[in-house]
Amino acid sequence: MKKISGGVTAPKGFQAAGIAAGIKKENIKDMAMLYSTAPCAAAGTFTTNVVKAAPVIWDRDIVRGKGTARAVVCNSGVANACTGKEGMGYCRKTAETAAALLDIAAEEVLVGSTGVIGKQLPMDVIAAGVKTLAGALSDSEEAGALAAEAILTTDTHKKEIAVEIFLGGKTVRLGGMCKGSGMIHPNMCTMLSFVTTDAAISQELLQKALSADVQDTYNMVSVDGDTSTNDTVLVLANGLAGNPEITAEGEDYDAFREALHTVNEYLAKQIAGDGEGATALFEAQVVGAESREQAKTLSKSIVCSNLTKAAICGHDANWGRILCAMGYSGAQFDPEKVDLFFESAAGRIQIIADGVAVDYSEEEATKILSEKEVKAIADIKQGEASATAWGCDLTHDYIRINADYRS
Amino acid sequence: MKKISGGVTAPKGFQAAGIAAGIKKENIKDMAMLYSTAPCAAAGTFTTNVVKAAPVIWDRDIVRGKGTARAVVCNSGVANACTGKEGMGYCRKTAETAAALLDIAAEEVLVGSTGVIGKQLPMDVIAAGVKTLAGALSDSEEAGALAAEAILTTDTHKKEIAVEIFLGGKTVRLGGMCKGSGMIHPNMCTMLSFVTTDAAISQELLQKALSADVQDTYNMVSVDGDTSTNDTVLVLANGLAGNPEITAEGEDYDAFREALHTVNEYLAKQIAGDGEGATALFEAQVVGAESREQAKTLSKSIVCSNLTKAAICGHDANWGRILCAMGYSGAQFDPEKVDLFFESAAGRIQIIADGVAVDYSEEEATKILSEKEVKAIADIKQGEASATAWGCDLTHDYIRINADYRS
Repeated sequence: MKKISGGVTAPKGFQAAGIAAGIKKENIKDMAMLYSTAPCAAAGTFTTNVVKAAPVIWDRDIVRGKGTARAVVCNSGVANACTGKEGMGYCRKTAETAAALLDIAAEEVLVGSTGVIGKQLPMDVIAAGVKTLAGALSDSEEAGALAAEAILTTDTHKKEIAVEIFLGGKTVRLGGMCKGSGMIHPNMCTMLSFVTTDAAISQELLQKALSADVQDTYNMVSVDGDTSTNDTVLVLANGLAGNPEITAEGEDYDAFREALHTVNEYLAKQIAGDGEGATALFEAQVVGAESREQAKTLSKSIVCSNLTKAAICGHDANWGRILCAMGYSGAQFDPEKVDLFFESAAGRIQIIADGVAVDYSEEEATKILSEKEVKAIADIKQGEASATAWGCDLTHDYIRINADYRS
Repeated sequence: MKKISGGVTAPKGFQAAGIAAGIKKENIKDMAMLYSTAPCAAAGTFTTNVVKAAPVIWDRDIVRGKGTARAVVCNSGVANACTGKEGMGYCRKTAETAAALLDIAAEEVLVGSTGVIGKQLPMDVIAAGVKTLAGALSDSEEAGALAAEAILTTDTHKKEIAVEIFLGGKTVRLGGMCKGSGMIHPNMCTMLSFVTTDAAISQELLQKALSADVQDTYNMVSVDGDTSTNDTVLVLANGLAGNPEITAEGEDYDAFREALHTVNEYLAKQIAGDGEGATALFEAQVVGAESREQAKTLSKSIVCSNLTKAAICGHDANWGRILCAMGYSGAQFDPEKVDLFFESAAGRIQIIADGVAVDYSEEEATKILSEKEVKAIADIKQGEASATAWGCDLTHDYIRINADYRS
């Protein structure tokens, strides 16, 4: 597998565009379009929130129905959540507008939204935006970058990746872009991720690969513990690479799965590291677990702990908070067996042995925790399973972004 | 029921003391003692964290064993958690020291701790403190207040209450004190609550009343979602009021239960309103639920949401975050049936009707949310059950307290 430059337009046959349609103020990009010149198998995973935004319901019906699509339209100004029947109508209208311009069916257009909740879409602006987007579509790397920029809300930078693998004698590419937690108005954080590939793969296996991988990537990320009404991950596979279609598990499926995992993991980590107000990516790894489920529960509890996240913000080796977060996770383990380490580009240090603090240097620990990416590793010495979760520190800026909007 | 002045020394036969033993710096009070002149039925509930502090294990053994006690010794400097066998030994030593001075058995001395995790108790300081405390015991209101002050960590004020009821022809009193979430050093938040009563009640029924009531009071509070290793609620009943001993459910039990609930709810709300960095007590009430369990899950999810809490900090009527938090709570409900109101001393305003925003005044909503106690009421229109949870806003000061300790 090779990492290549670019994003969603790296695979064959994918075009993109990103524009400032006028939903956000001050000429900030707020609408993106993705288009494939060939029909795509479409897979998706969606928020588990009981409150689901209109586009989530729309996309889910497409993915679970025919499972094919040709385009995605996304706006980053209005979430179209809690908008009732009227909002559902505007979502359909958005798809229909794009479909007419692209000469495809409305049911081939997936829709993504993030932004203000409870507000109706400004349909005139959206319709004009869709028209501009359709005219601006391009398969250039720049077009992909514009789209990656246009889906952002409070993210501080765009997040994209592209990789290349060989599959059935052919060069196959995957590209991805995503946005992380943010809110542009008193609002809601949303995770949106769009992955493209020219691999030929059946919809069934594409969905299977995505559903499994999401558990180990996006679902292991927490910025603030609030699950959005709009979370959406979509993968479009158009088959233009010409590899023999993957229709069963085996070597090709595994290779594709690995590439998809690389893309998803990269994007998930980018979301964590660019969490609202974050100054550091915080990784929690639990090793020596009896089961993967146990390791996942423990590692996720660590990155979700407000107290631990505030300590990371302060570069403080506050191991008690980590052990405490493991303790209330719901997973069983023996606290008196735990070894704990901190690790970063500045080094690695052991903090706890068998549940009790070793005589470590606070100065050294603070140095290690002052890097942009820091890791806590807990060895619970019960077995062979492990898991990793990603989060970020909890900072003054998180409060500023989310509390002080009106002041 | 009548609210009276004072705290833990209000019921007959209870003495208290609070001193600066020297565990904390700068002559800040850090040790408290409670003593009953007569043997007490002792009930307790403890942290569900897998990682349990030594005093939690010590107290649990007493409560679940003989279920009787005469004294409590508490320090607010060192949590005595993650301290292994050595820490357990120091906990026992604390009890033994107090027992010798008070001429009771070590197994009649309950121990409470909060503060730095992973650090061993400074036994010389503790032993000297216990001696001073034993000599300072008094049944005065002032002594109760000193004890209530000595158990605090980052709390901004002491929390105590006393009530009086008539039971079996006698005046029965209950007194309580507690501390909320705080940390005095890079550390751990802990909830400790001690309730005294001169009611005559069997240990079995005392435990039953406490176990049930904790579910509706302390367990409905969240400051930051981190469950401490030291959380402890203890109730001591010495029977000196002379009422016929409550040994079965009935009118007397119900009256006692109601008084205990008043004390516990008051203390729980005090903890929420004095959460680290908090500027407001935030109450979430869910009504019209099918079951109490559903209402509790939904209301607790609201007060635990970082995004909602940050919005409360900003006096922002961000109802989308509340609906979102209800949506990911795990409880089922129909978002399109929800009515939502905000209420405070400044008035009451409807924000959502049937899941969609009504045309409310943002100015009016902000005014209502600018009070020291604010309430969100969600009517899910499915049934008759309701529940209330208490939390606080998430502020810059929460981050300052928990991140910037070293800077």
